[in-house]
Amino acid sequence: MPLDSNLDPATHKFNVVGTRPVRPDGIDKVTGRAKFGADAVAPGMLIGKVLRSPHAHAKIKSIDVSKAAKLPGVKAIVTRDDFKEREPSLRDVLWNVMARDKVFYDGHAVAAVAATSASVARKALKLIKVDYEILPHVTDVDEAMKPGAPLLHHDMITGGIDPAPKKASNVAYRHEFGHGDVEAGFKQADVIVERSFKTEATHQGYIEPHACLANVGPDGQGELWVCTQGHYMIRNVSAALLGMDVAKLRVTPSEIGGGFGGKTTVFIEPLALALSRKANRPVKMVMSREEVFRATGPTAASSMDIKIGVKKDGRITAGFADIRFTGGPFVGSLVDMGAMSAFAAYDLENCKAVGHDVVSNRPKLAAYRAPSAPMVAFGVESVLDELAKKIGMDPIDLRLKNAAKEGTKSSYGPKYNRIGLIECLQAAKKHPNYTAPLGPNQGRGMAAGFWFNFGGQTAVSLNVHIDGTVALTVGTVDIGGSRASMCLIAAEELGVPYEQVRTVTADTSSLGYNDITEGSRTTFSTGMATIEAARDCIGKLCGRAAKIWGIPPEAVVWEKGYAKPAGANAGNFEPLSLADIAKQAATTGGPIAGHSEINAEGAGVSFAVHLCDAEVDKETGRALVKRYTVIQDAGKAIHPSYVEGQYQGGAAQGIGWAINEGYIYGKDGRLQNPGFLDYRIPVCSDLPMIDTHIVEVPNPGHPYGVRGVGETSIVPPLAAVANAISAAASVRMTEIPMSPPVVLKAIESNGHKK
Amino acid sequence: MPLDSNLDPATHKFNVVGTRPVRPDGIDKVTGRAKFGADAVAPGMLIGKVLRSPHAHAKIKSIDVSKAAKLPGVKAIVTRDDFKEREPSLRDVLWNVMARDKVFYDGHAVAAVAATSASVARKALKLIKVDYEILPHVTDVDEAMKPGAPLLHHDMITGGIDPAPKKASNVAYRHEFGHGDVEAGFKQADVIVERSFKTEATHQGYIEPHACLANVGPDGQGELWVCTQGHYMIRNVSAALLGMDVAKLRVTPSEIGGGFGGKTTVFIEPLALALSRKANRPVKMVMSREEVFRATGPTAASSMDIKIGVKKDGRITAGFADIRFTGGPFVGSLVDMGAMSAFAAYDLENCKAVGHDVVSNRPKLAAYRAPSAPMVAFGVESVLDELAKKIGMDPIDLRLKNAAKEGTKSSYGPKYNRIGLIECLQAAKKHPNYTAPLGPNQGRGMAAGFWFNFGGQTAVSLNVHIDGTVALTVGTVDIGGSRASMCLIAAEELGVPYEQVRTVTADTSSLGYNDITEGSRTTFSTGMATIEAARDCIGKLCGRAAKIWGIPPEAVVWEKGYAKPAGANAGNFEPLSLADIAKQAATTGGPIAGHSEINAEGAGVSFAVHLCDAEVDKETGRALVKRYTVIQDAGKAIHPSYVEGQYQGGAAQGIGWAINEGYIYGKDGRLQNPGFLDYRIPVCSDLPMIDTHIVEVPNPGHPYGVRGVGETSIVPPLAAVANAISAAASVRMTEIPMSPPVVLKAIESNGHKK
Repeated sequence: MPLDSNLDPATHKFNVVGTRPVRPDGIDKVTGRAKFGADAVAPGMLIGKVLRSPHAHAKIKSIDVSKAAKLPGVKAIVTRDDFKEREPSLRDVLWNVMARDKVFYDGHAVAAVAATSASVARKALKLIKVDYEILPHVTDVDEAMKPGAPLLHHDMITGGIDPAPKKASNVAYRHEFGHGDVEAGFKQADVIVERSFKTEATHQGYIEPHACLANVGPDGQGELWVCTQGHYMIRNVSAALLGMDVAKLRVTPSEIGGGFGGKTTVFIEPLALALSRKANRPVKMVMSREEVFRATGPTAASSMDIKIGVKKDGRITAGFADIRFTGGPFVGSLVDMGAMSAFAAYDLENCKAVGHDVVSNRPKLAAYRAPSAPMVAFGVESVLDELAKKIGMDPIDLRLKNAAKEGTKSSYGPKYNRIGLIECLQAAKKHPNYTAPLGPNQGRGMAAGFWFNFGGQTAVSLNVHIDGTVALTVGTVDIGGSRASMCLIAAEELGVPYEQVRTVTADTSSLGYNDITEGSRTTFSTGMATIEAARDCIGKLCGRAAKIWGIPPEAVVWEKGYAKPAGANAGNFEPLSLADIAKQAATTGGPIAGHSEINAEGAGVSFAVHLCDAEVDKETGRALVKRYTVIQDAGKAIHPSYVEGQYQGGAAQGIGWAINEGYIYGKDGRLQNPGFLDYRIPVCSDLPMIDTHIVEVPNPGHPYGVRGVGETSIVPPLAAVANAISAAASVRMTEIPMSPPVVLKAIESNGHKK
Repeated sequence: MPLDSNLDPATHKFNVVGTRPVRPDGIDKVTGRAKFGADAVAPGMLIGKVLRSPHAHAKIKSIDVSKAAKLPGVKAIVTRDDFKEREPSLRDVLWNVMARDKVFYDGHAVAAVAATSASVARKALKLIKVDYEILPHVTDVDEAMKPGAPLLHHDMITGGIDPAPKKASNVAYRHEFGHGDVEAGFKQADVIVERSFKTEATHQGYIEPHACLANVGPDGQGELWVCTQGHYMIRNVSAALLGMDVAKLRVTPSEIGGGFGGKTTVFIEPLALALSRKANRPVKMVMSREEVFRATGPTAASSMDIKIGVKKDGRITAGFADIRFTGGPFVGSLVDMGAMSAFAAYDLENCKAVGHDVVSNRPKLAAYRAPSAPMVAFGVESVLDELAKKIGMDPIDLRLKNAAKEGTKSSYGPKYNRIGLIECLQAAKKHPNYTAPLGPNQGRGMAAGFWFNFGGQTAVSLNVHIDGTVALTVGTVDIGGSRASMCLIAAEELGVPYEQVRTVTADTSSLGYNDITEGSRTTFSTGMATIEAARDCIGKLCGRAAKIWGIPPEAVVWEKGYAKPAGANAGNFEPLSLADIAKQAATTGGPIAGHSEINAEGAGVSFAVHLCDAEVDKETGRALVKRYTVIQDAGKAIHPSYVEGQYQGGAAQGIGWAINEGYIYGKDGRLQNPGFLDYRIPVCSDLPMIDTHIVEVPNPGHPYGVRGVGETSIVPPLAAVANAISAAASVRMTEIPMSPPVVLKAIESNGHKK
């Protein structure tokens, strides 16, 4: 924590933090004035379109663009030949953006065209001749691991800590986490449950498709307007892929119509920049929904074996997880984070989680809200549910018995600081929804969830205007109401009303580097930098007051928006408000600002407990969530309404993942449901009102005690819903999505017995 | 000077400062990629148009917009009723933007319409019924001062230091500057010349008309894209006129197609914002050229009497100037600056300048490059030219004899610091153009010129990117190549190549307040803030190197782009380049930045000496400039090509003012030449190559010795050209523009004698 403060967030009476003002971007968004990715235009703008592979796996023997290039209105075409190989760390990103020797999945980009209209561009795509040599493919993670499976990379030798023979396979990496002696632990157990689970890939399903407008000149200077969670990332990666100076690419983020992790990498942006550079014209690209499904970054698909042993009193003696993730054709399925989080909610003597990072002919995954944790929690929390039933213990009590707390050595290494899992479990147990009566064919489930919070690089500037209003300039894209939260934090520090502060997201040339809005980092990190910048500014405001009064700066204190003499000895002066001082800025030294550049440390970890009541139609297998409750530790809720919104949003997405959503691959390896009619995310009428309960156990690593709240809410739902359906249908659910056929099959295979 | 530096700009060997690299905005501008005021569009955008007065002076009895409002496609109409009276300091700005009780000049705005197309908006203007009561008008400054002249304001009582009776007149203010005993001085003179002069108003003639795109929502938050010299000024003034919070209005400056002082105030911007707020749609407004001439801010028109006495040896014993300016219907003709600068080039014992600020039925003036000084220099330098001839002294020697120097008490008060007038005069005397042979009907003239430099409020941020390239974020609009100069200065400080730095002008929400780009302040002030920000950043870079090496920050020095251990005791480490340190930013503390917010003090004053050879066709009166030389003190030329460009540009505009340009009013008080065909600015073929010579006498108030260079070059031309024409035509020219009829009349009235 870089900030000096005597403030104890557990007892401090905040002034504006914790209130629920209207969000500053609200009216723009509901009236259509907000500008999203596709809303930018430039004089002379071309439209860019991408030719995509119709094959799941094929060698590209040749690409002939000559006919397309001759079509009137076509101004530029780029293929693999237009992208130089870059440093190894960028290779996979580059190969994903534009296929090189092979196409690795249905939808993989093969060429891109910029033309004077969308219809000309589409015509041109049809004139590009790609000669493919079709190869056998594999999309299932277990199939991909089998000996004899079609190999994606003949040079992929199992790495990591695996002592396996050095032989090409689809296993890119093996990760292992844990401590203690798992075998010895299982020997101490009275009851052991071991089960296998499987989950399909899901998509973030953001409303707004990827869109950008690129404009690069022959002098190598460029601009990019783009819908993204991280415009600095877009800039750095695009500049690296295109061989541009970072300083010469100015990236401005649009408003964002959802991201959830899916807009944390590049897809069309380097293509738009390359086309613009080649055509010397602005180029706009907007993905179709089908492209979003086929060629952006869904989650990994998973398969896993979970084994947990307990004493009769509920004490867990050992936990073991063998986890297999596939997240597309390149290393990086994020199975490591799955393995790290498997047992992270519990204080265990013996635990071990092994993760296999497996490549397959699916699109390269991107993050999706607490990436990896929901699938692994599905396995672990399902087994715990079964164990609780077996030993006749309340499932919350089982978790309470084993819950991680301050001082616990986590399953992935570090010891926990102050955390709030026990408080969440206690609140869940007391929650009326936990004891509400159930109807016929209904079952109740609960699950706990863990997720990391990130910190990261953050820059903030705060400028005081002549009328005393304040501009807070941040570099983190607002995906969940962070502008409102930052206004609250700045107003809290400065001692002014919320309405006096306006937060703006700056372009990459106007403010220092900021990491992506991801990892539940923004309210934590940008909040921390905002506090630091505000305190820097308060120091300057006091200095100006000192100058006005002719006393030393140390003799001035800042209290509730006013500079005051520090005690009677400092002199007798009327307090000066922020606006009073702002009015005199010119004559006291010029503009008044505060700045902060940090790599925010002290991010906490986050826990949630969810309660779910589900109803199952045993004839059709259709499961419906009838009641849902999110209890989560926010550390300190800056804007409680947005915290609740995050809780509800994560739960809604998790319920969709649990019941409705999932990639469906045909035998040809092509995605069969690349649209919202066939890939069915829940709509309002599919869901009950999601109840929320904010627990506040301050994170000691943040001056206000803030924890990230954006992701953890999607961790428990797969398990909570599965436990509820298992209870309602009297059969243990082990496959997700729990769509009607899956549930029906489980019921039938069980003969309606548990 | 807020900066600690041992650097002596007079002897320092600069590394990149003083070189002439390609300007970073060059290719964008010549290829049409640069976005100017009219290049912005927004979804749902309306077009705004202004209804303007056809009368020079009239009472507005009523405005009926009812018919216009009913026209399909009309979305908003604003009149005086939509603008509340604001604080007194804003009254004139408000009344100029939108006429209130009276229209004061031909072109004065009366109403504005926003409609779905330009043609609908134009149709709507025709449907607005304004009932005028036409009043007598006056446009000539001398006529306006006469008793019985039509009064613009019945409550305008002569103010200032005038002891005159308190009676309404068109004299808004009287200013007086000087020292010594002028009457006593004239008594000591051997020769006295007293003459009257008159100049017409000119327009800056920028290529790009005023243009903006406003977007204000019902929540009071707004954005404005605008062509201006000062987007922070636009924001503050517009917010004040419209009653908006400053923080809620984000103003982004476009590239600017010329300003020269004419884009330092608001015209259509508050109207566009008001229309947008009323229509709840984006509104774009672009002025026509006719509107620019009729309703923006030309210079004052002037009339003056100049009296100077000299000893036979050339020593000036006294100087007196009575100056009358009219700059439209409101107080503020800038005659005060004219009176201040009248004798500012000379070290005089006795001098006095009186300025009368006179209102008339002309558009409210705006600044035009060294506003006021060219007209007054025309008078003073013409009289000196005549005196030199009378006492048989070389005109440069006459100036050298009386030239202001370090320690001189200026005619407007302060003592001069180190200045370079003598060096300029000496360089002029030695210049080959001063002794080149003259052809038939040719004459040679010279003149000196003085102008102030401004400092002012300035904020700069400097951010280091991951690849070691650098973003310099400034808030001053680039009107003369300042982005190139700022790149040079940042590169100089950091010790990196020019190409490694990119300078970007930030919007008002992304950087602290910056004063307008005016008063030759930008290279001086933004340069000073850039140096400070770079040094702030170097401190941080050294701190990062210290962290990497595990030594104290004080043990690290920055040399030529590298952090090095400070001497052998500090340790033995390989120097780290800026890029080396940038790469490790994340692990050493986060983004690396430097910031500076200052109210720049230490701005110098600036002097120039111009030489002109003119040829006069005595039959037609047509005068042509055949040879022209600008010698000016730049203090330190950061980018010599742009310094030379400023010298040439100012001279070209001054020559146009001297010979071609001028507002022509009809008897009805309407402007008769509101277009480039009738208001004739010189084109290339009208002008010779303008030779330049940069003198460098460092300004002790700036770490590099910088003086402003943008304005002084327009001060001497009126006089230098007049002196040359007077010599060629053997008649003293006293009226500007010296168009063929004016010159012919002078020749004829003189019977071809001097």
